[in-house]
Amino acid sequence: MYNLLKGKRGIIFGALNSQSIAWKVAERAHEEGAEFVLTNAPIALRMGELNELAQKTGSQVIAADATSIQDLENLVEKSMEILGGKIDFVLHSIGMSVNVRKGKHYTDPNYDFTTKGWDISAVSFHKTMNVLYNKEAMSEWGSIVALTYMAAQRVFPDYNDMADNKAYLESIARSFGYFFGRDYKVRVNTISQSPTPTTAGSGVKGFDGFIEYAEKMSPLGNATALECADYTITMFSDLTKKVTLQNLFHDGGFSNMGVSDPVMDKFE
Amino acid sequence: MYNLLKGKRGIIFGALNSQSIAWKVAERAHEEGAEFVLTNAPIALRMGELNELAQKTGSQVIAADATSIQDLENLVEKSMEILGGKIDFVLHSIGMSVNVRKGKHYTDPNYDFTTKGWDISAVSFHKTMNVLYNKEAMSEWGSIVALTYMAAQRVFPDYNDMADNKAYLESIARSFGYFFGRDYKVRVNTISQSPTPTTAGSGVKGFDGFIEYAEKMSPLGNATALECADYTITMFSDLTKKVTLQNLFHDGGFSNMGVSDPVMDKFE
Amino acid sequence: MYNLLKGKRGIIFGALNSQSIAWKVAERAHEEGAEFVLTNAPIALRMGELNELAQKTGSQVIAADATSIQDLENLVEKSMEILGGKIDFVLHSIGMSVNVRKGKHYTDPNYDFTTKGWDISAVSFHKTMNVLYNKEAMSEWGSIVALTYMAAQRVFPDYNDMADNKAYLESIARSFGYFFGRDYKVRVNTISQSPTPTTAGSGVKGFDGFIEYAEKMSPLGNATALECADYTITMFSDLTKKVTLQNLFHDGGFSNMGVSDPVMDKFE
Amino acid sequence: MYNLLKGKRGIIFGALNSQSIAWKVAERAHEEGAEFVLTNAPIALRMGELNELAQKTGSQVIAADATSIQDLENLVEKSMEILGGKIDFVLHSIGMSVNVRKGKHYTDPNYDFTTKGWDISAVSFHKTMNVLYNKEAMSEWGSIVALTYMAAQRVFPDYNDMADNKAYLESIARSFGYFFGRDYKVRVNTISQSPTPTTAGSGVKGFDGFIEYAEKMSPLGNATALECADYTITMFSDLTKKVTLQNLFHDGGFSNMGVSDPVMDKFE
Repeated sequence: MYNLLKGKRGIIFGALNSQSIAWKVAERAHEEGAEFVLTNAPIALRMGELNELAQKTGSQVIAADATSIQDLENLVEKSMEILGGKIDFVLHSIGMSVNVRKGKHYTDPNYDFTTKGWDISAVSFHKTMNVLYNKEAMSEWGSIVALTYMAAQRVFPDYNDMADNKAYLESIARSFGYFFGRDYKVRVNTISQSPTPTTAGSGVKGFDGFIEYAEKMSPLGNATALECADYTITMFSDLTKKVTLQNLFHDGGFSNMGVSDPVMDKFE
Repeated sequence: MYNLLKGKRGIIFGALNSQSIAWKVAERAHEEGAEFVLTNAPIALRMGELNELAQKTGSQVIAADATSIQDLENLVEKSMEILGGKIDFVLHSIGMSVNVRKGKHYTDPNYDFTTKGWDISAVSFHKTMNVLYNKEAMSEWGSIVALTYMAAQRVFPDYNDMADNKAYLESIARSFGYFFGRDYKVRVNTISQSPTPTTAGSGVKGFDGFIEYAEKMSPLGNATALECADYTITMFSDLTKKVTLQNLFHDGGFSNMGVSDPVMDKFE
Repeated sequence: MYNLLKGKRGIIFGALNSQSIAWKVAERAHEEGAEFVLTNAPIALRMGELNELAQKTGSQVIAADATSIQDLENLVEKSMEILGGKIDFVLHSIGMSVNVRKGKHYTDPNYDFTTKGWDISAVSFHKTMNVLYNKEAMSEWGSIVALTYMAAQRVFPDYNDMADNKAYLESIARSFGYFFGRDYKVRVNTISQSPTPTTAGSGVKGFDGFIEYAEKMSPLGNATALECADYTITMFSDLTKKVTLQNLFHDGGFSNMGVSDPVMDKFE
Repeated sequence: MYNLLKGKRGIIFGALNSQSIAWKVAERAHEEGAEFVLTNAPIALRMGELNELAQKTGSQVIAADATSIQDLENLVEKSMEILGGKIDFVLHSIGMSVNVRKGKHYTDPNYDFTTKGWDISAVSFHKTMNVLYNKEAMSEWGSIVALTYMAAQRVFPDYNDMADNKAYLESIARSFGYFFGRDYKVRVNTISQSPTPTTAGSGVKGFDGFIEYAEKMSPLGNATALECADYTITMFSDLTKKVTLQNLFHDGGFSNMGVSDPVMDKFE
């Protein structure tokens, strides 16, 4: 619509289906003139929906397990070949708690599940930046964004070990963002999004009630996946070059609310 | 360049000369297709430079003392007349410490100066929103931005009572932002900008050394006035509709640094 | 009980009646071996209840309008005389919004009320420290504490302009705390307490429902006035000498909650 | 000195030698009337210094690898036997980055080292609370404290992956603290301490210069290990019962400084 990403090259992780935030980011990035590679884990690609998005946006799909340095190296190399140059933007939208999936409570997890969930949800972001950094694959003033959730700062009891994974993820953004900024003028930020009814989000227990609570607490209501995509586009554009190491709340105001009138109504 | 603000109407407070962030915002908003009214205090207008900006951007200038409800009411009414409708965006870029100007130390101020500086630098933002809110002058999904500085969170010894004023200003953004969001779907945020060599910034003691320190601490270096204008444009655009009650750091990463390598070099 | 404040001299602002946090602090400080002066505004003293506390704790009462430098100078001088030396600890527990009292909504205040409330609730803390600092009235490693509320960080719609006043107050703690630490080794902190059914707290609209909400949100429940006094004693003791410029939440965990199970129960 | 912990039973992890913060906490807890068990990893115990502390404080030592649930179960069971009841306080002072030890840079770690360091430095805190929670081993109003560092919030380039580990640790404190508070009235907090010249701290590159920088930045100077022990005692005492889920800065004010005069002097 605005040509905000005209001529820019990207890699988008984590589009699963049309509910995914990453899917919306891909659609919007395409509208804004970007070219990009789509990637997801081999097992996620088997469902086949991503091909639809690839076709719609003129993109290629490269399978990569984001916990594998080798897969990430292949992804980054091939992406530069396909796109014809260094990468301008990267979206990391990956998260999964094995403990949540297997119904383990936070106070009594299976620690192998904890480790696996941490590796997938958080360390994968470090590995992705490791490969991009050491291959000098990012353009100057490029932009890297990971999606996160406010459970990294505050307690949401059913969010389980994803809270701790997101805290680790946001710390990686700062830690790696320093070196990426200092050495390559690349910015690294996280966007902390409203609870969103995606496939991933829906796995959390009591999610519908929680969506309603967040909606009532936020003066502007919950942010949708499409609105998150719009915001992400601004972070990939040349208009936000000096924003880095930040965790950016995109949540209709939820994060700075103590209580709202509609929530108080339930207590009077 | 992108038509991000095409058809949007705004009011821009605080452009003094071509170093001003507000001046750059006006230039960029004009390039992005917006129409707006420029305003400043009568005494600031006497210098006459603002007419140059008005001509360049096809804008009209309306004098207003931002501490006067009456002046603000006149400003808002006339702006809607001139622009032909409700307001889509407002920039508040106003700040002045009388204690700093008069050389009073933080630990022994003149409290009349303290009150006056607070009224100009912080309460003026409340008064501006009061008038906009009560006149129902903002469009749905409109955006209000005030410029601030990180002294609101952390100590910068020479920043004097402007630190406290900025803390109050940022609190107003949250407090009023709740009602503006709930009732009119308008978002309110502050942008916390790198130290910038404007006329206002230069008034702070030891400013040059401080600029250098901030430059060395920030992985991407200090953000310029023009870069701040670019960022502000994204906050006025339709791509950031669900960002509200936030204090957004635009500072090359300074705010999340504990120490950088170049700063550490001075201690080894 | 522990002699934590044995031999220490203090000034306690803001005890009104036995519900007051400052009242509890005085009782607990007395039990811990401190000697102190009690002070409040002349109008508050007229109710006469403070004499009961003075008798019980062997203290003298000195009237002082905390917005008057002259009154504060008299208070500090007399206190040093009475107590026989420099001051080791000070409690600032003063807050009042004229707009709240007069039923003015946040979006349409009387700005004279706003200024008066700000002067009483926030600037009085600056003035108090101004006098203590310039008279060199604090002992080395002394401790200054002001009570505050989380509305300084997050929106509580009925808290009105007290939110902004508390933000300003907390900023003063940092700004003045720097100079007090650097020059006199004195620490300055704020304690951000649970909503407490004191005379001041009860003035806020819908306070009972709000108390219940905070109780249900906090994993340990709301903190009482007595518990706040206990915590304040630790901050006056020699065991917390290097804690300064901090805003310390004493709230049963409320401040770091996103949502609790009992609150979610209302949405399912 | 004050009998603040009279009759209380504790477990103290991580005393290595007399420089250790945990060592000072043990000495101070003993002085304040507590009884406790000392624990460390089998390899750390081989050095034998801990026996000296055990003798001095009348404590027993139980070896436990804090990454082993089995070892922790043994530790908690034996501790309750030895001390004659449930546990009132626990100190977690464990941290080690294998990447730092082996000289791996943050941007190119060995991910097996990353995982091992995370398990030791962060997950060990979860495992410790898991065992305490599931064995119902904590007394009501008990207190659990873990030591952390501000690299969890802000970038210190040489702190390497310990920054991310500390962010994860602090998140565990909130996440587990919710359930511990809700179900057993136990509080969980982290203390974020000044850089301290312990064996662990000294492993970080450029540590001496950094200590000096922090000293110059902090209005009260760096906090010592003994001062940290004093502060920790207050958090174990009955005077801080409603403080939970908090990260408490004990750092002479460093965390809220933007710049200090002595640091600015290097830039003028």
